[in-house]
Amino acid sequence: MSGLVLPQLRVVAIGGGTGLSTLLLGLKRYVATPGSPTGFDRRGGSRGSSPNPCPDAPCLIRELAAVVTVTDDGGSSGRLREELQMLPPGDIRNCMVALSEDEHLLSRLFQYRFSQGDLEGHSFGNLFLAALNGISGDFAQAVQTSSQILATRGRIYPATTANATLTAQMDDGSVVRGETNITASKQSIVELMLDPPTADPLPETLAAIADADLITLGPGSLYTSLITNLLVRGIPEAIAASKATRVYICNLMTQANESLGLTASEHIEKILNHCGGARRQRLFDYALINTAPIRPKTLAKYAREGQAPIEADVDRVRALGVEPIQGSFVHEGEVLRHDYEAVAKRLMDLMASERRLA
Amino acid sequence: MSGLVLPQLRVVAIGGGTGLSTLLLGLKRYVATPGSPTGFDRRGGSRGSSPNPCPDAPCLIRELAAVVTVTDDGGSSGRLREELQMLPPGDIRNCMVALSEDEHLLSRLFQYRFSQGDLEGHSFGNLFLAALNGISGDFAQAVQTSSQILATRGRIYPATTANATLTAQMDDGSVVRGETNITASKQSIVELMLDPPTADPLPETLAAIADADLITLGPGSLYTSLITNLLVRGIPEAIAASKATRVYICNLMTQANESLGLTASEHIEKILNHCGGARRQRLFDYALINTAPIRPKTLAKYAREGQAPIEADVDRVRALGVEPIQGSFVHEGEVLRHDYEAVAKRLMDLMASERRLA
Repeated sequence: MSGLVLPQLRVVAIGGGTGLSTLLLGLKRYVATPGSPTGFDRRGGSRGSSPNPCPDAPCLIRELAAVVTVTDDGGSSGRLREELQMLPPGDIRNCMVALSEDEHLLSRLFQYRFSQGDLEGHSFGNLFLAALNGISGDFAQAVQTSSQILATRGRIYPATTANATLTAQMDDGSVVRGETNITASKQSIVELMLDPPTADPLPETLAAIADADLITLGPGSLYTSLITNLLVRGIPEAIAASKATRVYICNLMTQANESLGLTASEHIEKILNHCGGARRQRLFDYALINTAPIRPKTLAKYAREGQAPIEADVDRVRALGVEPIQGSFVHEGEVLRHDYEAVAKRLMDLMASERRLA
Repeated sequence: MSGLVLPQLRVVAIGGGTGLSTLLLGLKRYVATPGSPTGFDRRGGSRGSSPNPCPDAPCLIRELAAVVTVTDDGGSSGRLREELQMLPPGDIRNCMVALSEDEHLLSRLFQYRFSQGDLEGHSFGNLFLAALNGISGDFAQAVQTSSQILATRGRIYPATTANATLTAQMDDGSVVRGETNITASKQSIVELMLDPPTADPLPETLAAIADADLITLGPGSLYTSLITNLLVRGIPEAIAASKATRVYICNLMTQANESLGLTASEHIEKILNHCGGARRQRLFDYALINTAPIRPKTLAKYAREGQAPIEADVDRVRALGVEPIQGSFVHEGEVLRHDYEAVAKRLMDLMASERRLA
C-alpha cells in the first residue's frame, strides 16, 4: 500500500460486555478524523506507551458503528432498568468510553462508581444516560447525545429499543428468565430466546449493516453478549444479505453456563442455530481464532472455574464455510483479554488484502 | 461613555440559593469574552426574547467570581452530604447553570431531577459534582472542573471547604442545629453561628475580594444565604478592607424565620451584627432596594405566609452610612423575583459613574 489514499471502510462491530469494548479500543485508532490531512487525529497515537499503528495503517475506518446488547438486568444497569423503566446502560457506557478520547475527563467520570449511600454501585456514566433518557424520553437519542458529549469516534446503537427479557432453556429442561438468573444458573444454556420475541432493531442499525464493508461479531459471552443481538428481528438476515466481509471473533476461553467444552466450530454452530432462516445463508466469512499458547499459571487459575482455551478446530470451522484466521491475539494481564491492537491490525490487513483482490 | 474602551471590572457576588443565581443571570451578560473585538460573545444577547443590554453596556466584567454558601443540609444536597461526606452541591450547581450558556445541553442536564427509585429527588448536577468530588477528593477542584465543562462565565467558590453546621439561637431562647431544622422552626432567628466556628475560606476567595472593583451581597435569605457566608473566618474583614464598591442587594419580601417585620435598614443591621470586629468598618457603600409597587393579588398571596414587601426606610439606611439605590427591580411571575436585567444594568451604571468620578 504505497499510495496516499487508503481504503476507507465502514465497520459495524456487534456484541456486548467487555469483549466489544476491548475490540473498539483497537478499531478506534484506525478511525479517520475529518480535517486531518492524513485522516488521523494527531492524538490518535498518544495512548499510553503502546505503539502507534497509525503510520503504517493498511486501511482507515470512515464510519464505525457498535451494535450493543441491552438485555443486562444486574448491577447498576439492572437497578436503573427496574426503577426508571429504561434500557440497561452499562454495556453501552463501556463502549462509549472505549470510543472516547482516552484523555477525556468525562471518560474517567463515566467509569466512576459510587461506593457509599443510595448511590452505591452506580457508575456515573449510567446515571448520565439515565438523566439524558429522562430528558428526551428516547434512549437511542440519549446514547447519541452522550456520544457527542464524549466525542466518541463512532456511533453506538442499542441492539433494540424494546424492553426485552432474555429467557434460556437449560440443559436440564428448566427455563430461566433474566440475564442475571441465567448467568447464575448451574446449568448450561441450550437455547436462548427474547421475550417478547418481536424486539425490533433501530433502522440505523439495519442501514449500517447493509452499507458495511466489515462486520464483526464478538468477542464476548456466547449467549448473553453475542446471540442476544442475533435474536433481534432482522439482524441475522441483514448480516446474511450484506456484502461486507463478516468476521466472527472467537473468545479465548470457554465460559461457565455458556460455552464450557465447546470448540471454535461449535461456538459458530450455536450462533447459527439461533439465526432462524438466515442460517441457511452465509453469516461469517472468517473466524479469528487465537492459537498462541497461554501460560500454565494462568490456565490453572481459569481451570478452577472449569474454563479452558477454546480449541481451534480449524478443519471443522472450514467445513462450516468459514475461513479461520489464526494468530497470536491474546494479552495476559490480571485477566486474559484479546490483544486489541493485534486483533484490529489483523482485521485491517485482511480488509486491505480483500480490497486488493477485489 | 463614547470611547471604545469600556471599564473592565472585577466582580465578586456573594450569597446562595436562588437569589445569587438570579443575580448571576444578569451579571453574566456583561462578562467580556476574550477574542471578541467588542469584548462580547455574539451569543451574549441570544437569551430568549429578553432585550440585549450588551450594545449599550456602560461597563464590562473582566472577572466574575461567585462565593456560594455551603451550609445546606436538606434535599438532594443533604443526602449527598450525609452519605458521601461531601459539601452540599445544590446552591453551587444553580450558580454554575446560571453562569453557563443557556443553550448548553449540559446545563439542562444539570437541572434534571430524577423522579423515581433510589435516585428520586437527586438533581443530576449534584451527582456530577459528587462523582468529580469522588475522583479528585477535592470539592473546590470538582467545582472548578465542572465549571470548565459547563463553560461558565465566571468562577465559583464555595464559601468554605470546611464541613460546617449552621446553628441558630431563636427568639424563644432555643438553639437549633442544621439549616433544615432552622428553616422549619416556628421561631425567628436571633443569632446565627457556624459549628465549628473556625471555617476558613479558600485563599482564592480572599484574593478575589481584595482585588474586586465591585462586591455584591444578596439577594437571598438573610441568615441562611447571606450571613452564613460572613461567618466564614476573614470574609467580613476582607470585604471591609477591599477598595471595591460594595453593594447590598436587598430582598423584595420579608421571609419567615429570617426577616419577618424587618425593614431594609434592619436587614443591614442584622448583617453587621454578625460581622464581629469588621462591623466597625464600612461593609456596604450602597444598598439596592426595590421601591416599585407589587400587585395587590401577589401581595395577598405572600401575606398568607406573613410576608410583606421590605420597607425602604432610606433615611435609616443612610444613617448607617449606606447610600440607598432605589428603583424598580421586581419581576412578577409565578413567584416574585428580582428583575435581574434591571439589577445588573443598575450596577453597571453605578460602576461607570464611579469610574467617571474617580
